[in-house]
Amino acid sequence: MSDLKGKRRCRVGIAGFGTVGQAVARILSSGIHPELQLTHVCNRNVARKRVDWVSPDVIWTDSFEDLLDGEVDAVVELIGGISPATEWIESALKAGTAVVTANKQVIARVGGTLANLAATQGRHLLFEAAVAGGIPVVRALREGISSDRLVRIQGILNGTCNYILTQMEQEHVSFSEALSDAQRLGFAEADPTEDVDGLDAQAKLAILISVGLGRRVEVEDIPVSAITPIETVDFAYARRLGCVIRQIAHAELVVDSERTRAFVQPALVPEASSLGRVGGTKNIVVVDGEFGGETAFSGYGAGGEPTAVAVVSDLLAISRGAPLAQIPPEAGRGTDLVLPEFEAPHYLRFMIRDRPGIIATAAEVFSRHGINIDAVLQEPGWSKTELPFVVTLERCGSSVVSAAMDEIRQLDFHVRPPLWLPILSAEEGRG
Amino acid sequence: MSDLKGKRRCRVGIAGFGTVGQAVARILSSGIHPELQLTHVCNRNVARKRVDWVSPDVIWTDSFEDLLDGEVDAVVELIGGISPATEWIESALKAGTAVVTANKQVIARVGGTLANLAATQGRHLLFEAAVAGGIPVVRALREGISSDRLVRIQGILNGTCNYILTQMEQEHVSFSEALSDAQRLGFAEADPTEDVDGLDAQAKLAILISVGLGRRVEVEDIPVSAITPIETVDFAYARRLGCVIRQIAHAELVVDSERTRAFVQPALVPEASSLGRVGGTKNIVVVDGEFGGETAFSGYGAGGEPTAVAVVSDLLAISRGAPLAQIPPEAGRGTDLVLPEFEAPHYLRFMIRDRPGIIATAAEVFSRHGINIDAVLQEPGWSKTELPFVVTLERCGSSVVSAAMDEIRQLDFHVRPPLWLPILSAEEGRG
Repeated sequence: MSDLKGKRRCRVGIAGFGTVGQAVARILSSGIHPELQLTHVCNRNVARKRVDWVSPDVIWTDSFEDLLDGEVDAVVELIGGISPATEWIESALKAGTAVVTANKQVIARVGGTLANLAATQGRHLLFEAAVAGGIPVVRALREGISSDRLVRIQGILNGTCNYILTQMEQEHVSFSEALSDAQRLGFAEADPTEDVDGLDAQAKLAILISVGLGRRVEVEDIPVSAITPIETVDFAYARRLGCVIRQIAHAELVVDSERTRAFVQPALVPEASSLGRVGGTKNIVVVDGEFGGETAFSGYGAGGEPTAVAVVSDLLAISRGAPLAQIPPEAGRGTDLVLPEFEAPHYLRFMIRDRPGIIATAAEVFSRHGINIDAVLQEPGWSKTELPFVVTLERCGSSVVSAAMDEIRQLDFHVRPPLWLPILSAEEGRG
Repeated sequence: MSDLKGKRRCRVGIAGFGTVGQAVARILSSGIHPELQLTHVCNRNVARKRVDWVSPDVIWTDSFEDLLDGEVDAVVELIGGISPATEWIESALKAGTAVVTANKQVIARVGGTLANLAATQGRHLLFEAAVAGGIPVVRALREGISSDRLVRIQGILNGTCNYILTQMEQEHVSFSEALSDAQRLGFAEADPTEDVDGLDAQAKLAILISVGLGRRVEVEDIPVSAITPIETVDFAYARRLGCVIRQIAHAELVVDSERTRAFVQPALVPEASSLGRVGGTKNIVVVDGEFGGETAFSGYGAGGEPTAVAVVSDLLAISRGAPLAQIPPEAGRGTDLVLPEFEAPHYLRFMIRDRPGIIATAAEVFSRHGINIDAVLQEPGWSKTELPFVVTLERCGSSVVSAAMDEIRQLDFHVRPPLWLPILSAEEGRG
């Protein structure tokens, strides 16, 4: 692409003209980046997508092949999903076209293979928009603090979950009310599974593990836990503990091991912590470096315009002749094992039909598993037939809690399945 | 430098072997970046600086010329001050050597000229470490969100001031106690003038205005106000207003104008705001983009290791063949006028010898200037002969408050000069 420097404009074709694609087209059509020229828009049934605010020279097409035949310098892949997005990216790179994508699932799963192909072809494959939308965290980790040795990455990577959880916290609404609200405002899909079950954050975390920690893991190896069982009452108890509830993506190097600790799950975090302070649809990524200490990046993790900023910044990097990424050292390796086990204090919430001896029964199980109870909390004013109470546990391993909870779940006093969340303060979540 | 890519190691000479220089040498000697080779260390009386943990091949010298004669690919300038640092950077670029510097004063004052020279010479001049230490904000603005059009930059850019202010807030100590404490811990210089008077943040803000807003201003045109007049009692009043006190650097584009609004001064900011939450020696930069909205970058803004991460990341960019910065468009322009005037609610603290009629007298002056008083606050338990009280003003122009305060300052009831600070919430500080 070096022939573009300062001379020819970089010809850009967009594949997928949804919210993000349209926002990319808006920036490209605004005139603020004369080095970039929108030449093609590709979408199924493209006629219904046509807008009048782009240059009349733009070619509208249903066929991705038209982009590759059209002397496009860079393809922006925004169709989402694994297939045909993967094949399109491959064929673009093979045709000698640079690729910018916001596709977290493709990059998380086959990013290494595609990066190899891009390097072989001498073309760029950039994906700033695939993680944390408008926050330039991929570039920050790859370049800004590239000289540091990162040991831990924690983040709030899904704006939908964060919006739902902060609505439940601040407006005291139920999960389903907060979800409907998010759907009405366009912050959640009609089928919110990928977001609320943690699969979206799981893919993003896999990418951050590769970019930031230089390790490669199988996406599905990262354990996820949904935010759906969280109830309004949990926020009241969390507040008593000085905490809020967030969906946390966590990854860290396990020293002297090929394993990477990683998980995505709702957790209590201190209200005053970097993670606890991020509300609404915002995202944050907090990294810990051996030399630089803690550095945090926050902003809008989703939405058309912030995501488009990431896409167009990648296009500018290409047109300015940014060096090709070397084949990442982790791309050639097999994948690391993921260690899901971690130690932390824990929050357990039970919803029971009250009768004498319940706490004693639970306490006996914990004791048998070598777990120390820190406190038992019970808010007044609830019915005896559907009574929430909370037990906090002293720091212990997640698998130990899991085993104890498997036993307790069998007992007959539950009105609803019990909930357990780790309490992740700055020093917790580690091994 | 393209011949270095993947082949020859990038030979690095460090000029200035203080805290940061030593931390750079530590990272270069750690073996984690084989593409970088420390070859020279230059310092006055270098013999006393010699350490045994770098390669025995490193050449120790008193003379900067030895670096230029020594086939160094990149010089790291860490001597600070304007001269001879400026001349050294010039002579390195003229000798065909890339330069990485942490020198905010040089970049803020003659960065445009040096950038021109670097572009002419086809060499890099990188300065990530000059602003906000380990936070990769220069690269984030230049590359990560380069496609956005930024309209505002706010930051806490001086770790010394932030440490002093958060100590006063949390430990209820005086300014001088907090300063001694900072000096003892190495967070403040023996002569702290540049930090506490705002000159350090002033230079950093000038650089951010150039990098982020694409404008050029004279450093001295940015008004600064010292944090020295702030007293412990101000934190108590600030808390009553839901605020903390921070040294804020603020810049924004004035629409339809060649002017850039900018100032550095202590201000009340909401406790729960991005700026209010940054404590200790940390820094933060919050930018507002037309497309991406608010994005924030926080981390350690000073200290040897975080600053060294910025320096070595710049060296890695050079060794990886990052594209040369184009001559920045603002470099060729004359400088913009700085608009120091802004609108905000204001906090005024008086320390008086009490007698009847003082508030009436002050109120008459405000009224005559068209300023509305929002509230009068007075904490109990103070002596009548040295009584603090606080007046908050509704949103009004800073020059109007200044004029009113000039009058009030002449009145005879003051035990100490009155203090005024703006109250900068998210929407304030603008015009």
